[in-house]
Amino acid sequence: MNFTLEQIAHLIGGKLEGSKDTKVNTISSIEDAEEGSITFLANPKYEPLVYTTRASAVIVDEKLILNKKIDTALIRAVDPYAAFTSLLEAYDQLLSFNKAGIDEPSFIHKTATYGTDIYVGAFAYIGSNVKIGDQVKIYPNAYIGDDVIIGNRTIIHPGVKIYAKSIIGSHCTLQAGVIIGSDGFGYAPLEDGSYKKIPQLGNVVLEDHVDVGANTVIDCATFDTTLIKKGVKLDNLIQIGHNTTIGENTVIAAQTGIAGSVKIGENCRIGGQVGIAGHLKIADKTQIQAQSGVSKNTKVSQTIYGTPAIDFNNYLRSYTIYKKLPNVMKQIEKLEEKLLNL
Amino acid sequence: MNFTLEQIAHLIGGKLEGSKDTKVNTISSIEDAEEGSITFLANPKYEPLVYTTRASAVIVDEKLILNKKIDTALIRAVDPYAAFTSLLEAYDQLLSFNKAGIDEPSFIHKTATYGTDIYVGAFAYIGSNVKIGDQVKIYPNAYIGDDVIIGNRTIIHPGVKIYAKSIIGSHCTLQAGVIIGSDGFGYAPLEDGSYKKIPQLGNVVLEDHVDVGANTVIDCATFDTTLIKKGVKLDNLIQIGHNTTIGENTVIAAQTGIAGSVKIGENCRIGGQVGIAGHLKIADKTQIQAQSGVSKNTKVSQTIYGTPAIDFNNYLRSYTIYKKLPNVMKQIEKLEEKLLNL
Amino acid sequence: MNFTLEQIAHLIGGKLEGSKDTKVNTISSIEDAEEGSITFLANPKYEPLVYTTRASAVIVDEKLILNKKIDTALIRAVDPYAAFTSLLEAYDQLLSFNKAGIDEPSFIHKTATYGTDIYVGAFAYIGSNVKIGDQVKIYPNAYIGDDVIIGNRTIIHPGVKIYAKSIIGSHCTLQAGVIIGSDGFGYAPLEDGSYKKIPQLGNVVLEDHVDVGANTVIDCATFDTTLIKKGVKLDNLIQIGHNTTIGENTVIAAQTGIAGSVKIGENCRIGGQVGIAGHLKIADKTQIQAQSGVSKNTKVSQTIYGTPAIDFNNYLRSYTIYKKLPNVMKQIEKLEEKLLNL
Repeated sequence: MNFTLEQIAHLIGGKLEGSKDTKVNTISSIEDAEEGSITFLANPKYEPLVYTTRASAVIVDEKLILNKKIDTALIRAVDPYAAFTSLLEAYDQLLSFNKAGIDEPSFIHKTATYGTDIYVGAFAYIGSNVKIGDQVKIYPNAYIGDDVIIGNRTIIHPGVKIYAKSIIGSHCTLQAGVIIGSDGFGYAPLEDGSYKKIPQLGNVVLEDHVDVGANTVIDCATFDTTLIKKGVKLDNLIQIGHNTTIGENTVIAAQTGIAGSVKIGENCRIGGQVGIAGHLKIADKTQIQAQSGVSKNTKVSQTIYGTPAIDFNNYLRSYTIYKKLPNVMKQIEKLEEKLLNL
Repeated sequence: MNFTLEQIAHLIGGKLEGSKDTKVNTISSIEDAEEGSITFLANPKYEPLVYTTRASAVIVDEKLILNKKIDTALIRAVDPYAAFTSLLEAYDQLLSFNKAGIDEPSFIHKTATYGTDIYVGAFAYIGSNVKIGDQVKIYPNAYIGDDVIIGNRTIIHPGVKIYAKSIIGSHCTLQAGVIIGSDGFGYAPLEDGSYKKIPQLGNVVLEDHVDVGANTVIDCATFDTTLIKKGVKLDNLIQIGHNTTIGENTVIAAQTGIAGSVKIGENCRIGGQVGIAGHLKIADKTQIQAQSGVSKNTKVSQTIYGTPAIDFNNYLRSYTIYKKLPNVMKQIEKLEEKLLNL
Repeated sequence: MNFTLEQIAHLIGGKLEGSKDTKVNTISSIEDAEEGSITFLANPKYEPLVYTTRASAVIVDEKLILNKKIDTALIRAVDPYAAFTSLLEAYDQLLSFNKAGIDEPSFIHKTATYGTDIYVGAFAYIGSNVKIGDQVKIYPNAYIGDDVIIGNRTIIHPGVKIYAKSIIGSHCTLQAGVIIGSDGFGYAPLEDGSYKKIPQLGNVVLEDHVDVGANTVIDCATFDTTLIKKGVKLDNLIQIGHNTTIGENTVIAAQTGIAGSVKIGENCRIGGQVGIAGHLKIADKTQIQAQSGVSKNTKVSQTIYGTPAIDFNNYLRSYTIYKKLPNVMKQIEKLEEKLLNL
């Protein structure tokens, strides 16, 4: 990024106060900004920072009245936060779409097909019968197994591994190290105490606008499909078991583990390090607090907490007493003493 | 997969009712089946589904009596579930063994040796003095460090990283992203508050029939060996610390973490997101409930739960009361009041 | 490793009793040692093992008086543990620095620069404008994005992925599968229940002497920097959220998750599977017990435990009573009965 303030004021529809030729090359928070960066001031309570920041320019409210001399340029906007966000997005687009073409060496099977304007990084592997849409980016060292389908404008970061037969929608983003379609954890116990693997022959489907965080793993179904519906957002290092379904626009924080054959509804919000046992039904709009261990079905819009998870407020009320259990014991002992002395 | 029903009936030793030339190309559950798929009906309680399924064929009990007209072909078998499983296995074999030969470019050090019928995918790296058995499959972007030994019929999925000197048995499966032999977490504190790394010079040994799930990490020993014994099954995103030993046929669910120098016995069943502290001894046939935090040795066949983990039934009985602690407090207050009023 | 006992005695400054030409090729613990290995005896209580070990040589205290005949050579040293550690380090140096040169095929962008004595493994990718210091080792299948800077003597193990603009200090070690700079988990909810991604445009900075464990993920900042300060040691499968700062010489065990915008102080010790909520301040020298869920700021040198985490001793005292809650209930019922019968 290397833009003049005039260009940026034009982009975000703001009014510039300062030199139009000043250049900025990075985006910062107002506290940490250095010369050459642009930042924003949305909350009036942080106004003092505008007089001390080292940023070269600050996006501010169009109505801001200055009380002191300032050293930085200003760009005045109706909604400074929205203006800043549109700047972030423009910059992001620019970065995302600066990769194009097919690096050498890469491996693209002769039966694979792809659309226009794709990027394939060095050492990426694309198997037989793979179908790739337009403007897809596949970064270096990614692996796309046989018969995989990938929709338009999806981004596959470095080192992602997609097993054969997976289907990835459009506008998805898979961060580095994601594994899609690994074998589900299914074993039949034998009489001698050993286990026999149950073949895992299904696949994984990600619908459109699904984001998957770094090193997250989604297992394939035993047969049929492990299904991640439209708009689901998964953070890093999550485990999704075989044959599980996650409903539209559900978001899940890092390191949560979901066992096999779970049905999760729409618009749920699931915290980090949660565990959900196999075959449960999690209703729409369920909220699960971080580190909870879920062992029962939930009701629509329920908030739960604890291991095993119970109603959130119930858990907190009990925990308040848990913290003073030694005192509770003293109360009981005092009662016993009093009764004895009656 | 693309077989006629005649071929399948022959394979599973069943009796076909329907057109012998009908072809099926996938395996499904009876609810989700579409035309072109084969499924099974094992539990008589689901009999109604056989009249409504869209599957092209259903494997059923040889004694099934139909009460309505059906649209699907039937294959009658003595044990429909066993017949279906043998079909899954045949299909799995077919899929697993459709990869062969050595892709270009790959890197095989001139001192590495290998057996017959191996597969090495593109961008796989095989270091010096590596010894690979017969019918081993090494998928693209896998890394096999110097002096590693891999037994017969083992499958190394894409992007697996095996550090130098590791030994992998026969009939093992390592899912994508597995790390074998990374440095153990060993540091000596220095007087200035900083830490000095203790060199990690041992290795990891996986005996035969060990399966390791996607993105699971097994650290090498400080010296000697981190040992995973015959028939152990590990799920995804598990952490195994340095110098730990896991006994035969123990199974561990996803995201469990085992610290260093732990000795785990045979035939244990360990749930997901469990933590086990360093230097403990987990006895044979121990069962550990999901999310437990284990801080003490266990007894043979004990079942434990909680953080810190205690006897399973003890934990549940206490939790039953925990959930109603606010009411318990009211009981105590009522007692205090009554005593005062005496 | 293949040294004579004379060479080793010389290296560690010890006095050899045994054949100077005996060769050893590995390092073991005294219990597990086989012929050809060297081990040590530091704790006098294990003296009996020196008479039964199968090691070819044992490093012992210079004052050790033997009570029986031994079959192994001895190397007497002032401090046998320190002597053994210096042997480990010498061996480790030897192993680490036996890789050199640039394997083919690898991908080094023409604008990338690097110092002397570096190693670049096969299928490693080095993007545009990358700057690599002296004696850096980049193992096979690693990915170094555009504009990344890597300091001297840093080791990048196989399959590490470093996103564009990250800065890695000197003397760092990144184990296999580490992800540096993946997008932070930031979404703005829209009125229709779906989420819009907030562009993640910052970077990650690792200062000098930082170690990162296998498959650990550090997200980039939304803007500004996710900062891991000098001497921090991170174990495997850890999640570090966007805009978080970790202070000098803090150590964190495996599978811990730290949300976004957390400020962690210096010299903290954080156990495994801990969760820390967003925007918290963790004071210097805080100790957090394994599996705790931290939802409040901490005080200097505080030790905490539980979910939500409270003072360590408080948690344990409450847990002691938790375990006998069924008996506590009986006490209360007895009190009620007595009162009724008064």
